[in-house]
Amino acid sequence: MKYSPLLDELIRELQVLPGVGPKSAQRMAFQLLERERPRGQRLARVLERALTEIGHCQQCRTFTENELCEICANPKRAQKRQLCIVESPADVAAIEQTHLYSGRYFVLMGHLSPLDGIGPRELGLDLLESRLQSEAYDEVILATNPTIEGDATAFFIANLARQAGVTVTRIAHGVPVGGELELVDGTTLSHSLAGRRPLE
Amino acid sequence: MKYSPLLDELIRELQVLPGVGPKSAQRMAFQLLERERPRGQRLARVLERALTEIGHCQQCRTFTENELCEICANPKRAQKRQLCIVESPADVAAIEQTHLYSGRYFVLMGHLSPLDGIGPRELGLDLLESRLQSEAYDEVILATNPTIEGDATAFFIANLARQAGVTVTRIAHGVPVGGELELVDGTTLSHSLAGRRPLE
Repeated sequence: MKYSPLLDELIRELQVLPGVGPKSAQRMAFQLLERERPRGQRLARVLERALTEIGHCQQCRTFTENELCEICANPKRAQKRQLCIVESPADVAAIEQTHLYSGRYFVLMGHLSPLDGIGPRELGLDLLESRLQSEAYDEVILATNPTIEGDATAFFIANLARQAGVTVTRIAHGVPVGGELELVDGTTLSHSLAGRRPLE
Repeated sequence: MKYSPLLDELIRELQVLPGVGPKSAQRMAFQLLERERPRGQRLARVLERALTEIGHCQQCRTFTENELCEICANPKRAQKRQLCIVESPADVAAIEQTHLYSGRYFVLMGHLSPLDGIGPRELGLDLLESRLQSEAYDEVILATNPTIEGDATAFFIANLARQAGVTVTRIAHGVPVGGELELVDGTTLSHSLAGRRPLE
Protein backbone atom coordinates (compact mmCIF):
# COMPACT_ATOMS: atom_id res chain seq x y z
CA MET A 1 0.00 0.00 0.00
CA LYS A 2 1.52 3.26 -1.15
CA TYR A 3 -1.25 5.75 -0.35
CA SER A 4 -4.41 5.85 1.77
CA PRO A 5 -6.73 2.86 1.15
CA LEU A 6 -9.28 4.88 -0.83
CA LEU A 7 -6.62 6.56 -2.99
CA ASP A 8 -4.97 3.18 -3.65
CA GLU A 9 -8.38 1.81 -4.68
CA LEU A 10 -8.99 4.73 -7.05
CA ILE A 11 -5.56 4.22 -8.68
CA ARG A 12 -6.30 0.48 -9.05
CA GLU A 13 -9.76 0.98 -10.54
CA LEU A 14 -8.57 3.63 -13.04
CA GLN A 15 -6.48 0.87 -14.60
CA VAL A 16 -9.64 -0.70 -16.04
CA LEU A 17 -9.31 1.97 -18.74
CA PRO A 18 -7.43 0.72 -21.83
CA GLY A 19 -3.86 2.00 -22.08
CA VAL A 20 -3.77 3.13 -18.43
CA GLY A 21 -1.08 1.55 -16.23
CA PRO A 22 -0.12 2.26 -12.60
CA LYS A 23 1.87 5.43 -13.40
CA SER A 24 -0.78 7.14 -15.51
CA ALA A 25 -3.53 6.02 -13.12
CA GLN A 26 -1.60 7.77 -10.33
CA ARG A 27 -1.19 10.90 -12.42
CA MET A 28 -4.92 10.87 -13.22
CA ALA A 29 -5.92 10.43 -9.57
CA PHE A 30 -3.63 13.28 -8.43
CA GLN A 31 -4.81 15.64 -11.18
CA LEU A 32 -8.47 14.96 -10.35
CA LEU A 33 -7.92 15.41 -6.60
CA GLU A 34 -5.78 18.52 -6.95
CA ARG A 35 -7.46 20.44 -9.71
CA GLU A 36 -10.53 18.82 -11.24
CA ARG A 37 -12.84 17.70 -8.44
CA PRO A 38 -16.07 19.11 -9.91
CA ARG A 39 -15.38 17.75 -13.42
CA GLY A 40 -14.23 14.45 -11.92
CA GLN A 41 -17.52 14.19 -10.03
CA ARG A 42 -19.35 14.86 -13.28
CA LEU A 43 -17.32 12.11 -14.98
CA ALA A 44 -18.28 9.68 -12.19
CA ARG A 45 -21.97 10.47 -12.60
CA VAL A 46 -21.96 10.29 -16.42
CA LEU A 47 -20.01 7.02 -16.30
CA GLU A 48 -22.51 5.50 -13.87
CA ARG A 49 -25.46 6.64 -16.00
CA ALA A 50 -23.92 5.63 -19.34
CA LEU A 51 -23.03 2.13 -18.15
CA THR A 52 -26.56 1.66 -16.78
CA GLU A 53 -28.60 3.25 -19.55
CA ILE A 54 -26.70 2.69 -22.81
CA GLY A 55 -27.74 -0.51 -24.55
CA HIS A 56 -27.97 -1.53 -28.19
CA CYS A 57 -30.29 -0.22 -30.89
CA GLN A 58 -32.90 -2.91 -31.49
CA GLN A 59 -32.55 -2.62 -35.24
CA CYS A 60 -28.87 -2.00 -35.96
CA ARG A 61 -27.19 -2.95 -32.64
CA THR A 62 -25.16 0.25 -32.29
CA PHE A 63 -24.83 1.88 -28.85
CA THR A 64 -27.78 4.02 -27.78
CA GLU A 65 -29.71 4.79 -24.62
CA ASN A 66 -32.98 4.70 -26.59
CA GLU A 67 -34.81 1.79 -28.16
CA LEU A 68 -33.71 2.89 -31.64
CA CYS A 69 -30.63 4.91 -32.58
CA GLU A 70 -31.09 8.22 -34.36
CA ILE A 71 -30.39 6.76 -37.79
CA CYS A 72 -32.79 3.82 -37.45
CA ALA A 73 -35.46 6.15 -36.03
CA ASN A 74 -35.19 8.43 -39.09
CA PRO A 75 -37.76 7.32 -41.74
CA LYS A 76 -35.80 9.11 -44.52
CA ARG A 77 -32.96 6.68 -43.99
CA ALA A 78 -35.24 3.74 -44.90
CA GLN A 79 -36.18 5.19 -48.29
CA LYS A 80 -32.75 4.43 -49.77
CA ARG A 81 -33.19 0.65 -49.32
CA GLN A 82 -29.48 0.29 -48.64
CA LEU A 83 -27.94 -1.50 -45.66
CA CYS A 84 -24.28 -0.94 -44.77
CA ILE A 85 -22.64 -3.61 -42.58
CA VAL A 86 -19.84 -2.38 -40.27
CA GLU A 87 -17.93 -3.82 -37.35
CA SER A 88 -18.24 -1.02 -34.80
CA PRO A 89 -20.11 2.20 -33.95
CA ALA A 90 -16.90 4.13 -34.74
CA ASP A 91 -17.15 2.86 -38.32
CA VAL A 92 -20.67 4.29 -38.55
CA ALA A 93 -19.32 7.65 -37.41
CA ALA A 94 -16.49 7.47 -39.99
CA ILE A 95 -18.88 6.70 -42.88
CA GLU A 96 -21.35 9.37 -41.73
CA GLN A 97 -18.56 11.94 -41.92
CA THR A 98 -18.17 11.31 -45.67
CA HIS A 99 -21.79 12.55 -46.17
CA LEU A 100 -21.98 10.15 -49.15
CA TYR A 101 -24.22 7.50 -47.64
CA SER A 102 -27.81 8.00 -46.56
CA GLY A 103 -29.05 4.44 -46.07
CA ARG A 104 -29.16 2.41 -42.88
CA TYR A 105 -26.51 0.47 -40.98
CA PHE A 106 -26.10 -2.83 -39.26
CA VAL A 107 -23.38 -2.87 -36.60
CA LEU A 108 -21.88 -6.29 -35.89
CA MET A 109 -20.06 -5.14 -32.72
CA GLY A 110 -17.10 -7.32 -33.73
CA HIS A 111 -16.26 -9.93 -36.36
CA LEU A 112 -16.47 -13.71 -36.65
CA SER A 113 -13.76 -15.21 -34.46
CA PRO A 114 -14.54 -18.84 -33.59
CA LEU A 115 -11.48 -19.17 -31.35
CA ASP A 116 -12.83 -16.39 -29.11
CA GLY A 117 -16.30 -17.94 -29.16
CA ILE A 118 -17.68 -15.23 -31.43
CA GLY A 119 -19.99 -16.86 -33.97
CA PRO A 120 -22.94 -15.67 -36.05
CA ARG A 121 -25.24 -15.44 -32.99
CA GLU A 122 -22.87 -13.13 -31.10
CA LEU A 123 -22.81 -10.77 -34.09
CA GLY A 124 -26.61 -10.72 -34.29
CA LEU A 125 -26.62 -12.35 -37.72
CA ASP A 126 -30.00 -14.00 -36.95
CA LEU A 127 -31.43 -10.49 -36.52
CA LEU A 128 -29.70 -9.41 -39.74
CA GLU A 129 -31.08 -12.41 -41.62
CA SER A 130 -34.65 -11.73 -40.54
CA ARG A 131 -34.25 -8.04 -41.47
CA LEU A 132 -32.96 -8.97 -44.92
CA GLN A 133 -35.94 -11.29 -45.40
CA SER A 134 -38.65 -8.95 -44.10
CA GLU A 135 -37.43 -5.50 -45.25
CA ALA A 136 -37.04 -4.79 -48.95
CA TYR A 137 -33.38 -3.84 -49.52
CA ASP A 138 -31.87 -3.17 -52.93
CA GLU A 139 -28.25 -3.37 -51.78
CA VAL A 140 -26.13 -4.64 -48.91
CA ILE A 141 -22.78 -2.82 -48.67
CA LEU A 142 -20.11 -4.80 -46.83
CA ALA A 143 -17.82 -2.38 -44.98
CA THR A 144 -16.13 -4.73 -42.52
CA ASN A 145 -12.41 -4.19 -41.99
CA PRO A 146 -10.02 -5.52 -44.66
CA THR A 147 -8.55 -8.12 -42.27
CA ILE A 148 -8.77 -11.90 -42.43
CA GLU A 149 -11.60 -11.93 -39.87
CA GLY A 150 -13.35 -8.97 -41.49
CA ASP A 151 -13.16 -10.63 -44.91
CA ALA A 152 -14.48 -13.94 -43.53
CA THR A 153 -17.36 -12.10 -41.87
CA ALA A 154 -18.13 -10.26 -45.11
CA PHE A 155 -18.12 -13.55 -47.03
CA PHE A 156 -20.57 -15.09 -44.52
CA ILE A 157 -22.95 -12.13 -44.72
CA ALA A 158 -22.73 -12.02 -48.52
CA ASN A 159 -24.23 -15.52 -48.53
CA LEU A 160 -27.08 -14.45 -46.24
CA ALA A 161 -27.83 -11.50 -48.51
CA ARG A 162 -27.79 -13.56 -51.68
CA GLN A 163 -30.20 -16.06 -50.10
CA ALA A 164 -32.50 -13.12 -49.44
CA GLY A 165 -32.10 -12.03 -53.05
CA VAL A 166 -30.32 -8.76 -52.27
CA THR A 167 -27.41 -7.37 -54.35
CA VAL A 168 -24.15 -7.41 -52.37
CA THR A 169 -21.22 -4.99 -52.76
CA ARG A 170 -17.93 -4.62 -50.88
CA ILE A 171 -16.27 -1.23 -50.36
CA ALA A 172 -13.10 -0.76 -52.43
CA HIS A 173 -9.69 -1.53 -50.94
CA GLY A 174 -6.60 -0.06 -52.50
CA VAL A 175 -4.01 2.70 -52.32
CA PRO A 176 -5.22 5.43 -49.91
CA VAL A 177 -5.84 8.79 -51.58
CA GLY A 178 -2.77 10.99 -51.07
CA GLY A 179 -0.62 7.92 -50.37
CA GLU A 180 2.52 7.11 -52.32
CA LEU A 181 2.74 3.81 -54.17
CA GLU A 182 6.21 2.96 -52.90
CA LEU A 183 5.07 3.29 -49.28
CA VAL A 184 2.00 1.09 -49.62
CA ASP A 185 2.29 -2.52 -48.42
CA GLY A 186 2.16 -5.40 -50.88
CA THR A 187 -1.24 -6.78 -49.88
CA THR A 188 -2.91 -3.42 -50.34
CA LEU A 189 -1.22 -2.99 -53.70
CA SER A 190 -2.39 -6.46 -54.81
CA HIS A 191 -5.96 -5.54 -53.81
CA SER A 192 -5.55 -2.29 -55.68
CA LEU A 193 -4.41 -4.03 -58.87
CA ALA A 194 -7.04 -6.76 -58.69
CA GLY A 195 -9.72 -4.13 -58.17
CA ARG A 196 -8.73 -1.96 -61.15
CA ARG A 197 -11.53 -0.41 -63.18
CA PRO A 198 -11.76 0.79 -66.78
CA LEU A 199 -11.26 4.56 -67.12
CA GLU A 200 -14.44 6.24 -68.30
CA MET B 1 -22.86 14.83 -32.56
CA LYS B 2 -21.31 11.51 -33.59
CA TYR B 3 -23.04 9.10 -31.21
CA SER B 4 -26.07 9.09 -28.93
CA PRO B 5 -26.21 12.12 -26.58
CA LEU B 6 -25.23 10.13 -23.48
CA LEU B 7 -22.33 8.37 -25.24
CA ASP B 8 -21.11 11.71 -26.63
CA GLU B 9 -21.24 13.13 -23.10
CA LEU B 10 -19.26 10.19 -21.69
CA ILE B 11 -16.58 10.61 -24.38
CA ARG B 12 -16.40 14.34 -23.63
CA GLU B 13 -16.14 13.89 -19.85
CA LEU B 14 -13.46 11.19 -20.09
CA GLN B 15 -11.22 13.88 -21.59
CA VAL B 16 -10.91 15.51 -18.17
CA LEU B 17 -8.29 12.79 -17.53
CA PRO B 18 -4.74 13.96 -18.29
CA GLY B 19 -3.34 12.60 -21.56
CA VAL B 20 -6.76 11.51 -22.84
CA GLY B 21 -7.91 13.08 -26.13
CA PRO B 22 -11.03 12.40 -28.25
CA LYS B 23 -9.67 9.19 -29.81
CA SER B 24 -8.60 7.50 -26.58
CA ALA B 25 -11.76 8.70 -24.79
CA GLN B 26 -13.78 6.97 -27.51
CA ARG B 27 -11.74 3.79 -27.16
CA MET B 28 -12.23 3.88 -23.37
CA ALA B 29 -15.98 4.39 -23.66
CA PHE B 30 -16.35 1.51 -26.15
CA GLN B 31 -14.22 -0.85 -24.10
CA LEU B 32 -16.19 -0.11 -20.93
CA LEU B 33 -19.54 -0.51 -22.69
CA GLU B 34 -18.57 -3.67 -24.56
CA ARG B 35 -16.58 -5.59 -22.02
CA GLU B 36 -16.12 -3.93 -18.65
CA ARG B 37 -19.49 -2.71 -17.42
CA PRO B 38 -19.22 -4.09 -13.84
CA ARG B 39 -15.66 -2.78 -13.37
CA GLY B 40 -16.63 0.51 -14.99
CA GLN B 41 -19.48 0.87 -12.52
CA ARG B 42 -17.04 0.17 -9.72
CA LEU B 43 -14.71 2.86 -11.10
CA ALA B 44 -17.62 5.35 -11.15
CA ARG B 45 -18.48 4.62 -7.52
CA VAL B 46 -14.87 4.76 -6.27
CA LEU B 47 -14.25 7.99 -8.19
CA GLU B 48 -17.34 9.60 -6.68
CA ARG B 49 -16.35 8.48 -3.16
CA ALA B 50 -12.68 9.42 -3.53
CA LEU B 51 -13.42 12.92 -4.80
CA THR B 52 -15.87 13.47 -1.95
CA GLU B 53 -13.97 11.89 0.93
CA ILE B 54 -10.27 12.36 0.21
CA GLY B 55 -8.91 15.55 1.73
CA HIS B 56 -5.56 16.53 3.15
CA CYS B 57 -3.78 15.21 6.25
CA GLN B 58 -4.04 17.94 8.89
CA GLN B 59 -0.41 17.58 9.82
CA CYS B 60 1.50 16.88 6.60
CA ARG B 61 -1.05 17.87 3.90
CA THR B 62 -0.77 14.62 1.90
CA PHE B 63 -3.94 13.06 0.46
CA THR B 64 -5.96 10.98 2.91
CA GLU B 65 -9.61 10.28 3.68
CA ASN B 66 -8.84 10.40 7.41
CA GLU B 67 -7.91 13.32 9.63
CA LEU B 68 -4.29 12.15 9.77
CA CYS B 69 -2.43 10.05 7.20
CA GLU B 70 -0.98 6.72 8.28
CA ILE B 71 2.53 8.12 8.74
CA CYS B 72 1.46 11.11 10.87
CA ALA B 73 -0.82 8.85 12.92
CA ASN B 74 2.11 6.53 13.73
CA PRO B 75 3.77 7.65 17.02
CA LYS B 76 7.01 5.78 16.14
CA ARG B 77 7.51 8.17 13.25
CA ALA B 78 7.68 11.12 15.65
CA GLN B 79 10.53 9.62 17.70
CA LYS B 80 13.07 10.30 14.95
CA ARG B 81 12.58 14.09 15.17
CA GLN B 82 13.20 14.40 11.45
CA LEU B 83 10.93 16.20 8.97
CA CYS B 84 11.31 15.60 5.24
CA ILE B 85 9.85 18.26 2.92
CA VAL B 86 8.59 17.04 -0.45
CA GLU B 87 6.49 18.49 -3.25
CA SER B 88 3.95 15.72 -3.79
CA PRO B 89 2.44 12.54 -2.27
CA ALA B 90 4.21 10.55 -5.01
CA ASP B 91 7.54 11.77 -3.58
CA VAL B 92 6.55 10.41 -0.16
CA ALA B 93 5.85 7.03 -1.78
CA ALA B 94 9.21 7.11 -3.59
CA ILE B 95 11.15 7.88 -0.39
CA GLU B 96 9.20 5.29 1.60
CA GLN B 97 10.26 2.66 -0.93
CA THR B 98 13.92 3.22 -0.05
CA HIS B 99 13.15 2.04 3.53
CA LEU B 100 15.94 4.40 4.66
CA TYR B 101 13.83 7.11 6.25
CA SER B 102 11.61 6.70 9.27
CA GLY B 103 10.81 10.29 10.23
CA ARG B 104 7.81 12.36 9.25
CA TYR B 105 6.96 14.29 6.10
CA PHE B 106 5.54 17.62 5.10
CA VAL B 107 3.94 17.63 1.63
CA LEU B 108 3.85 21.04 -0.06
CA MET B 109 1.46 19.89 -2.84
CA GLY B 110 3.44 22.05 -5.28
CA HIS B 111 6.25 24.59 -5.23
CA LEU B 112 6.54 28.38 -4.98
CA SER B 113 5.42 29.86 -8.29
CA PRO B 114 4.41 33.51 -7.89
CA LEU B 115 3.33 33.82 -11.54
CA ASP B 116 0.71 31.11 -10.97
CA GLY B 117 -0.39 32.70 -7.70
CA ILE B 118 1.24 29.99 -5.61
CA GLY B 119 2.88 31.63 -2.62
CA PRO B 120 3.85 30.45 0.90
CA ARG B 121 0.19 30.32 2.04
CA GLU B 122 -0.85 27.98 -0.81
CA LEU B 123 1.95 25.57 0.16
CA GLY B 124 0.86 25.60 3.81
CA LEU B 125 4.13 27.17 4.95
CA ASP B 126 2.30 28.89 7.84
CA LEU B 127 1.35 25.43 9.10
CA LEU B 128 4.94 24.25 8.55
CA GLU B 129 6.32 27.25 10.46
CA SER B 130 4.08 26.63 13.47
CA ARG B 131 5.00 22.92 13.43
CA LEU B 132 8.72 23.78 13.36
CA GLN B 133 8.21 26.14 16.30
CA SER B 134 6.04 23.87 18.45
CA GLU B 135 7.46 20.39 17.74
CA ALA B 136 11.08 19.63 18.62
CA TYR B 137 12.80 18.60 15.38
CA ASP B 138 16.51 17.83 15.10
CA GLU B 139 16.64 17.99 11.29
CA VAL B 140 14.67 19.27 8.34
CA ILE B 141 15.52 17.39 5.11
CA LEU B 142 14.72 19.34 1.96
CA ALA B 143 13.69 16.91 -0.79
CA THR B 144 11.98 19.28 -3.22
CA ASN B 145 12.71 18.69 -6.91
CA PRO B 146 16.06 19.93 -8.29
CA THR B 147 14.35 22.53 -10.50
CA ILE B 148 14.51 26.32 -10.29
CA GLU B 149 11.15 26.45 -8.47
CA GLY B 150 12.02 23.50 -6.24
CA ASP B 151 15.35 25.10 -5.29
CA ALA B 152 13.68 28.46 -4.56
CA THR B 153 11.11 26.70 -2.39
CA ALA B 154 13.87 24.81 -0.55
CA PHE B 155 15.76 28.07 0.05
CA PHE B 156 12.60 29.70 1.49
CA ILE B 157 11.92 26.77 3.82
CA ALA B 158 15.58 26.60 4.88
CA ASN B 159 15.16 30.14 6.27
CA LEU B 160 12.03 29.15 8.20
CA ALA B 161 13.85 26.16 9.70
CA ARG B 162 16.91 28.19 10.68
CA GLN B 163 14.67 30.74 12.41
CA ALA B 164 13.22 27.86 14.41
CA GLY B 165 16.74 26.70 15.25
CA VAL B 166 16.54 23.41 13.36
CA THR B 167 19.43 21.93 11.32
CA VAL B 168 18.65 21.95 7.59
CA THR B 169 19.94 19.47 4.99
CA ARG B 170 19.26 19.05 1.28
CA ILE B 171 19.25 15.64 -0.45
CA ALA B 172 22.27 15.08 -2.73
CA HIS B 173 22.01 15.80 -6.45
CA GLY B 174 24.47 14.24 -8.85
CA VAL B 175 25.12 11.42 -11.28
CA PRO B 176 22.39 8.75 -10.91
CA VAL B 177 23.69 5.37 -9.74
CA GLY B 178 24.15 3.11 -12.77
CA GLY B 179 24.29 6.16 -15.06
CA GLU B 180 27.17 6.86 -17.40
CA LEU B 181 29.08 10.11 -17.04
CA GLU B 182 29.03 10.95 -20.76
CA LEU B 183 25.23 10.67 -20.85
CA VAL B 184 24.60 12.93 -17.85
CA ASP B 185 23.61 16.55 -18.59
CA GLY B 186 25.97 19.40 -17.71
CA THR B 187 23.93 20.87 -14.86
CA THR B 188 23.73 17.53 -13.07
CA LEU B 189 27.45 17.00 -13.56
CA SER B 190 28.21 20.49 -12.14
CA HIS B 191 26.07 19.66 -9.08
CA SER B 192 27.88 16.38 -8.80
CA LEU B 193 31.31 18.03 -8.86
CA ALA B 194 30.34 20.83 -6.47
CA GLY B 195 28.89 18.26 -4.07
CA ARG B 196 31.98 15.99 -4.01
CA ARG B 197 32.95 14.46 -0.68
CA PRO B 198 36.26 13.16 0.72
CA LEU B 199 36.64 9.39 0.38
CA GLU B 200 36.70 7.74 3.77
